Amino acid sequence: MAPKNAFYAQSGGVTAVINASACGIIETARKHPDKIGKVYAGRNGIIGALTEDLIDTSLEDDVAIAALRSTPSGAFGSCRYKLKGLDQNRREYERLLEVFAAHDIGYFFYNGGGDSADTCLKVSQLSETMGYPIQAIHVPKTVDNDLPITDNCPGFGSVAKYIAVSTLEASFDVASMAKTSTKVFVLEVMGRHAGWIAAAGGLASTDDQPLPILTLFPEIAFDERAFLARVKDMVETHGFCSVVVSEGVRNADGQFLADQGLKDAFGHAQLGGVAPVIANIVKNGLGYKYHWGVADYLQRAARHIASRTDVDQAYAMGRTAVEFAIAGRNSVMPTIERISDAPYEWRIGCAPLDQVANVEKMMPRSFITADGFGITDECRRYLLPLIEGEDYPPFKNGLPCYVRLKNLAVERKLKENFEI
Amino acid sequence: MAPKNAFYAQSGGVTAVINASACGIIETARKHPDKIGKVYAGRNGIIGALTEDLIDTSLEDDVAIAALRSTPSGAFGSCRYKLKGLDQNRREYERLLEVFAAHDIGYFFYNGGGDSADTCLKVSQLSETMGYPIQAIHVPKTVDNDLPITDNCPGFGSVAKYIAVSTLEASFDVASMAKTSTKVFVLEVMGRHAGWIAAAGGLASTDDQPLPILTLFPEIAFDERAFLARVKDMVETHGFCSVVVSEGVRNADGQFLADQGLKDAFGHAQLGGVAPVIANIVKNGLGYKYHWGVADYLQRAARHIASRTDVDQAYAMGRTAVEFAIAGRNSVMPTIERISDAPYEWRIGCAPLDQVANVEKMMPRSFITADGFGITDECRRYLLPLIEGEDYPPFKNGLPCYVRLKNLAVERKLKENFEI
Repeated sequence: MAPKNAFYAQSGGVTAVINASACGIIETARKHPDKIGKVYAGRNGIIGALTEDLIDTSLEDDVAIAALRSTPSGAFGSCRYKLKGLDQNRREYERLLEVFAAHDIGYFFYNGGGDSADTCLKVSQLSETMGYPIQAIHVPKTVDNDLPITDNCPGFGSVAKYIAVSTLEASFDVASMAKTSTKVFVLEVMGRHAGWIAAAGGLASTDDQPLPILTLFPEIAFDERAFLARVKDMVETHGFCSVVVSEGVRNADGQFLADQGLKDAFGHAQLGGVAPVIANIVKNGLGYKYHWGVADYLQRAARHIASRTDVDQAYAMGRTAVEFAIAGRNSVMPTIERISDAPYEWRIGCAPLDQVANVEKMMPRSFITADGFGITDECRRYLLPLIEGEDYPPFKNGLPCYVRLKNLAVERKLKENFEI
Repeated sequence: MAPKNAFYAQSGGVTAVINASACGIIETARKHPDKIGKVYAGRNGIIGALTEDLIDTSLEDDVAIAALRSTPSGAFGSCRYKLKGLDQNRREYERLLEVFAAHDIGYFFYNGGGDSADTCLKVSQLSETMGYPIQAIHVPKTVDNDLPITDNCPGFGSVAKYIAVSTLEASFDVASMAKTSTKVFVLEVMGRHAGWIAAAGGLASTDDQPLPILTLFPEIAFDERAFLARVKDMVETHGFCSVVVSEGVRNADGQFLADQGLKDAFGHAQLGGVAPVIANIVKNGLGYKYHWGVADYLQRAARHIASRTDVDQAYAMGRTAVEFAIAGRNSVMPTIERISDAPYEWRIGCAPLDQVANVEKMMPRSFITADGFGITDECRRYLLPLIEGEDYPPFKNGLPCYVRLKNLAVERKLKENFEI
C-alpha cells in the first residue's frame, strides 16, 4: 500500500523562522518515503485546504527546500482565518476531510498559534467521528510566545533578538546625541496582550553595560505621572533614556493608548501607533526632544538577525512533528522542554492538543519589576538563551538570499467548489 | 620638538560607521608617534572643544580602539551645534584656537557633513589669519549622502543596506499575509531633502526576484491619484505591495505630508510620521488592510547589518585624514573616487574644503523612473556596490559587543569658561 500523503499549512502572522519548521517537516518526510508520500502545502494556509488549492512540494528540489531554513515569511502563504466551532460550521471541517481523502492525505501538520492548535484538535476529533483516519500534529509558532506547556514558541526568540539588538543600537545612538538633541527614544514593538516582546528590549541593558531603558507592558496599566518621573530621573542621571513600548499598552480604564481619537486637519480619523503618543507625553510633560520608531513587520521578518536557538528549535519542531506522525501519534504538539538556563539545555517534549488549545500563557508578574517599568533577573534568565547565537542567511549582492518556491498546484480532484 | 597633538570631533547625526572613521584616525595616529602626539576627542563634538572638555584617547587601550570599528553611534558624543559665520560669532572660532593652542593641538579632524565641512574650512582660514598654525581635515560622514565630489558618504551605505534588507524582509512578510490580511506595507525612512535612503528600498526588487515596491521621494511632489492607481495596480497584479516613503515627501504645495495638523481627542497637536499618513490614504482610497513601520534611529544605528564597503570606506577616510595631515595637507577632505561599478573599484581622492562646504549633492533626476515611483538602472548601478558585503560585529550572549570607552577628561588649562 502506498504511504499516505501529508498536508502542511502555515497559520496566522508569519515569522522569521516558520519556514525553518516547514523545512524540518519536508526534509524529514523526504527521508521516510516508505512512511510518507508527498507533502502538500496549503496555498495561503488552511484556505488552501478548504478551496482544494494545494501546492505540491515534491516539485521543489532539495536546494530550494533547504533554503527555507534561512528564509523568513510564509513560503506557501499564510492566512488569518479561524475555523468556527464544530457546532457552528461543521461543514468546514467536513470539507477539510473531503479534501484530505481526495488526495490520500493521512497526516495534517498545522503550523501556528493557539487558534490553529484548536483547529488541529477539532480536525483530529472529527476524523475519528467520521471514520476517516487522520493524524493531526500541531507545530508551534507564534511571536507572541503565548502557547502553554512549551518553554517558548518558535518565532519569538528571533523577534526578541531583533528588539534587544535594536534597543541596544538605538540607545547607543541617542546617548551620542543627548547633549544637544534627542534625549528620549521610543520604540514601539508588537504584543497586544502580552509583554514578552517588550521585555526583550530590557536585555539590551546588562550588568557589564547598563543602559537606561524603560519598558511599558500591556500587563501594567499606564501611569503617566510615574512614567514621567522615571523618564526625568533617567535623563537627569544618564543624559538620555530609551522607552520600549508594547503596542498593547492601556491606561487604567483599559483603553489602548494608541487609540487617541486622532483627527487630521479635515476632521478625518487617523490611526497612529502608540510610540508617537508616548513621545508626545514626554514632550508635553518634560519638554525633552525625542525620536520614535515603530518596528512593525520588520521585527518578525528580520531573518538576517535571527536567533540561532530559535532557528534550531523551529527546525526541530518540524522534524519532530514528522517523527511523531511516523510513530503513530495523533492530536499532539511537539514542545520545547528547558533543562537548564545557563548553559541552556533543552529537549523535545510532547503535549496533548487538548491541553494546548485555548490556553494562553501570560507573562508571569514575577518577570516584571515591582515598579512595572523593567524586567527582573528571573525574566532575564528565561529570555537570554532564546536570543543566543546567530544564524546568518547567505548573502548575494549585498542582500540575503531568500528563496521563493515555484509553488505549483496539485491537480484538483473534487468537483465542488467551496466558498470561504 | 614634541609632535603636535590632534583634536577629533564627531558632528551631527551619528551613523553605524562614524566610529570606524574614529578608529582609522586613532589607530593611524598611533602608528606615527613621531608626527602626532595624543589624539584628543571633543566630548559631545565641537562643544567639547569650545568648553575645553577634551577626552584623552591615549588612555584607551588598543583593544578598545579596535572595537570602535564595529561599534555604532558616536563614541565620544556628537552634537547638533552649527558654528555661526565668522562675522557673526568670531569669538567661537577664536575660542577653538585658544583651546587648540592651550593643548598644543596642531591637527583638527572634524567628522561630519556639510555644516562641519564649513566649520572646518573657517577654522583653517582663521588660523592663518591669527597666526596659529592648524591643519584642518574634514572626514566625510552623513547618512544623507549629500556631500559633493566624493562618490558617496560613509554612513550612507549601511543605512541603504538596512533599508534594502528590511524592505526585502517586510515584502516577503506581507506577501505571505496578503490573501486574507495586510496587502500594503508602508516603511518610513530618513531623508528630509533627498531620496537617497528611500531609493535603497528599491534594491530589494531584483531581476531575479522582482517585488512590487513603490518609492516616494522628497524630490517628487506627492500625487495622490497617481499613487493610489499604482498601489491598486500592484495589489491586483501581485496581491500586495510595499511602499518606501521618505520622511520628507511633500505635496504639490510644498507642504510635508507628515505635517497633517493632527489633534488628539482633547485638541492637542500631535506629531505623527508620514508612514501612517500614507497608510491612511491607502485605506481611505482603496480599502486595503495595511501595516506601517518607522525605522527612525534603527536604520542609522544598525551596525549589526552594516555594509562592509561602508565600514571599509569609513575606516579608510579616517586613516587617510591622518596621512593627509602628516603629509602637510590642510583644508581638505579625503574622498571616495569610483573607478568602476561592477566589480566595484574605488580609490581615495582629495577635495579642497572650499569646494565641499555649502554644496549639497542632490539625487539626479535620472536616478528616478519617469513615473516618479521607482529607481532606474543607473541608480541601481550606483547603489549596489555601496551595500555590498557584510561586516558582522562580534556577539556575546546573543547581543553585539559594542564598546563604551572610558572617555577620561584631559585636565583643563584655560581659566576662562565658555558659555555655549
